[in-house]
Amino acid sequence: MSGAKAVREDRLWQRHVDMARLGGLPGGGVNRQALSAEDAASRNLLASWAAARGFAIFTDAIGNLFVRREGSDPAAPPVMSGSHMDSQPTGGRYDGMYGVLAAFEALEALEDAGVATRRPVIAVAWTNEEGSRFQPGAMGSAVFAGQYRLEDMLQQRDWEGVVLKDALAATLKAAPAPLRDGPPGFPVGAYVEAHIEQGPRLENEARTIGVVTGIQGSRRYIVTITGEEAHAGTTPRAARKDAYAAATRIAAAMYAATTDADDMLRFTIGRVEVLPGSPNTVPGKVTFTIDMRHPEDAVLEAHEGQLAGIVGRLAAPCPAGIERVTNVAPTVFAREVVDLVRAKAAALGLSHMDMPSGAGHDAMHVAHLCPTGMIFVPCERGISHNEAENATPADLAAGARVLVEVLEDLANR
Amino acid sequence: MSGAKAVREDRLWQRHVDMARLGGLPGGGVNRQALSAEDAASRNLLASWAAARGFAIFTDAIGNLFVRREGSDPAAPPVMSGSHMDSQPTGGRYDGMYGVLAAFEALEALEDAGVATRRPVIAVAWTNEEGSRFQPGAMGSAVFAGQYRLEDMLQQRDWEGVVLKDALAATLKAAPAPLRDGPPGFPVGAYVEAHIEQGPRLENEARTIGVVTGIQGSRRYIVTITGEEAHAGTTPRAARKDAYAAATRIAAAMYAATTDADDMLRFTIGRVEVLPGSPNTVPGKVTFTIDMRHPEDAVLEAHEGQLAGIVGRLAAPCPAGIERVTNVAPTVFAREVVDLVRAKAAALGLSHMDMPSGAGHDAMHVAHLCPTGMIFVPCERGISHNEAENATPADLAAGARVLVEVLEDLANR
Repeated sequence: MSGAKAVREDRLWQRHVDMARLGGLPGGGVNRQALSAEDAASRNLLASWAAARGFAIFTDAIGNLFVRREGSDPAAPPVMSGSHMDSQPTGGRYDGMYGVLAAFEALEALEDAGVATRRPVIAVAWTNEEGSRFQPGAMGSAVFAGQYRLEDMLQQRDWEGVVLKDALAATLKAAPAPLRDGPPGFPVGAYVEAHIEQGPRLENEARTIGVVTGIQGSRRYIVTITGEEAHAGTTPRAARKDAYAAATRIAAAMYAATTDADDMLRFTIGRVEVLPGSPNTVPGKVTFTIDMRHPEDAVLEAHEGQLAGIVGRLAAPCPAGIERVTNVAPTVFAREVVDLVRAKAAALGLSHMDMPSGAGHDAMHVAHLCPTGMIFVPCERGISHNEAENATPADLAAGARVLVEVLEDLANR
Repeated sequence: MSGAKAVREDRLWQRHVDMARLGGLPGGGVNRQALSAEDAASRNLLASWAAARGFAIFTDAIGNLFVRREGSDPAAPPVMSGSHMDSQPTGGRYDGMYGVLAAFEALEALEDAGVATRRPVIAVAWTNEEGSRFQPGAMGSAVFAGQYRLEDMLQQRDWEGVVLKDALAATLKAAPAPLRDGPPGFPVGAYVEAHIEQGPRLENEARTIGVVTGIQGSRRYIVTITGEEAHAGTTPRAARKDAYAAATRIAAAMYAATTDADDMLRFTIGRVEVLPGSPNTVPGKVTFTIDMRHPEDAVLEAHEGQLAGIVGRLAAPCPAGIERVTNVAPTVFAREVVDLVRAKAAALGLSHMDMPSGAGHDAMHVAHLCPTGMIFVPCERGISHNEAENATPADLAAGARVLVEVLEDLANR
């Protein structure tokens, strides 16, 4: 029996159902933010499944969780697959979780089919991909791949002031796993990540498998505007330093400057804080985040200049600044992996198309370490980062079938 | 000895220092929001001072706290003075508190001077003037004066969902006082409220006493915009329903529409909530508050129409609405009280000027019940609703001297 034939649609679907209970929300989505109690619960559940199959687990200093199926050559760099189990505050049940469960399904399918591989095959759950609680996102994979410094990340704070190091310690205490000594990262033969598309293209073109060719670049910024708190009833406009009036001027100009004709630039102001937040006090401080993405780095660079110019020009009389907090260059995946994904999808008789990824994924960091690729499956109306996120059991299983075939091939190279 | 001569600047100042410790902030201001533990502490402190002087205290069903100095005709409607002890989240130590402490100083000065009055004189601390936690503000005085219904107010919720009735019960449990039976409100002979100006005019014109002629009208609104949460990296602009992009268009147009040539209209967006508040999720919901004030009701009415038009015109593709939550008409104070304040300031040799109030005050509600007036004293640079709020001991005492003379006169009519 081949690995693909051993993939069980019902088992993979039930694992999604079980995981969706952890941080489950009334609308069907999940709130399972990085290093929360719900995150710990998902780690324990995955570990229990691994134990039931006799797979070894281990973690590293940034909390990435690895499930290893041994190869005939245990010393060979493993082939790895996975994604993340943390979610947005009102996220869906498939974003990230599918990649982890598809990888785990691949391990189980190989086991059930009695397939031996030369290299070990590892399913991984990367820590804090979403970046909604601790910034930056895709943190675990970035530390693993040497893109961010472990020491810097451990000092990050969430919006409540909790230090990541403390949240990580609490998570690993609640969800213990053997710790791999030393800094994160080890040699990897290849990496393949399965994920829902999070966009509408596969559905619109009626294809089951997206052969992902690369990931657009993304940059994140924080804009800070300092005004002066004043009484809303007595302070004339001319005497105000209204931080929110300045923020509105700046945001309006930024939306205009990022309205490109071909609708390729993604510009989002997602988090806004207005202080002190009293209806009858002129705001004294505003901070907001910017998330900007495009497949071409030069386009991002040009727009970054425009954003900085807008802050400098329109903030007066309020001092203001814009700080870039992350800059992830566009990724081009390894030709050999992209070709292999396409070939395996075709061999399984699945409709497929080449496409870039609109979203960032852990694969963009791992691509610095080893040949890397991704497999997309459709999600309903392209909706993601939303409780309404949805996908079909059949499409999820189809992606897992391609994945196990690709992993088996890579693990025997 | 006259009441004015018995006013003690040092005592009045020390009482401000003592009160500023309750909810004291590092920057010198206070966070003593309505019906908080700090509010209860200020009630207990005032009650302890009243007890030390033998004044009776009582409260009512909305938590207004009264300190009564008896008159020779206990059945005569009392003369009343006071303000509020709750503060903004990052407020100053004089806003509201000065009016309560000046009234209490007046009671003590009458006592020390051995002045008997026909009518009782009452110092009052009204519940929840600021409206920063529970809306609407000036709540205690409005219920007392029959402007808002007690039952409605008890059902109000703060931004965390706490019901006012529960917060009030907890406050009165922590700061007990005899409860006056029945609905709030009783006959009052006259009401005079002392307050810092919260604007720059007295300081700019080097006057000590503001003879307040009335209060501008104010209206509050909540704007709600509903978008659709979506992934910031994958969702094209054309497919987005970005609630914050819509909010920015709306706010920018509102700022423009309220930019009047004579700078008399006060327009403030003070509280903004953007959900889910994740940097890489397109906002699905935005709510913001509007505080708008002007001395002429017709101007407010005309601008209200403009604001509604802006929401209707610019929110697409997001459903949106604007709801008026309060509407307080401009107040004109009683001629007899305004004239009396002016005459007493002149008799004490204090520089003074007639002026309207830019801020709303409890006096605007009490004015529906009885002849009402206000006394302003300067505050540094007009700064208020800010920890930097400041006033001098001499100016505070000067206001209290005018107040005690006015109250004595009114209490013998």
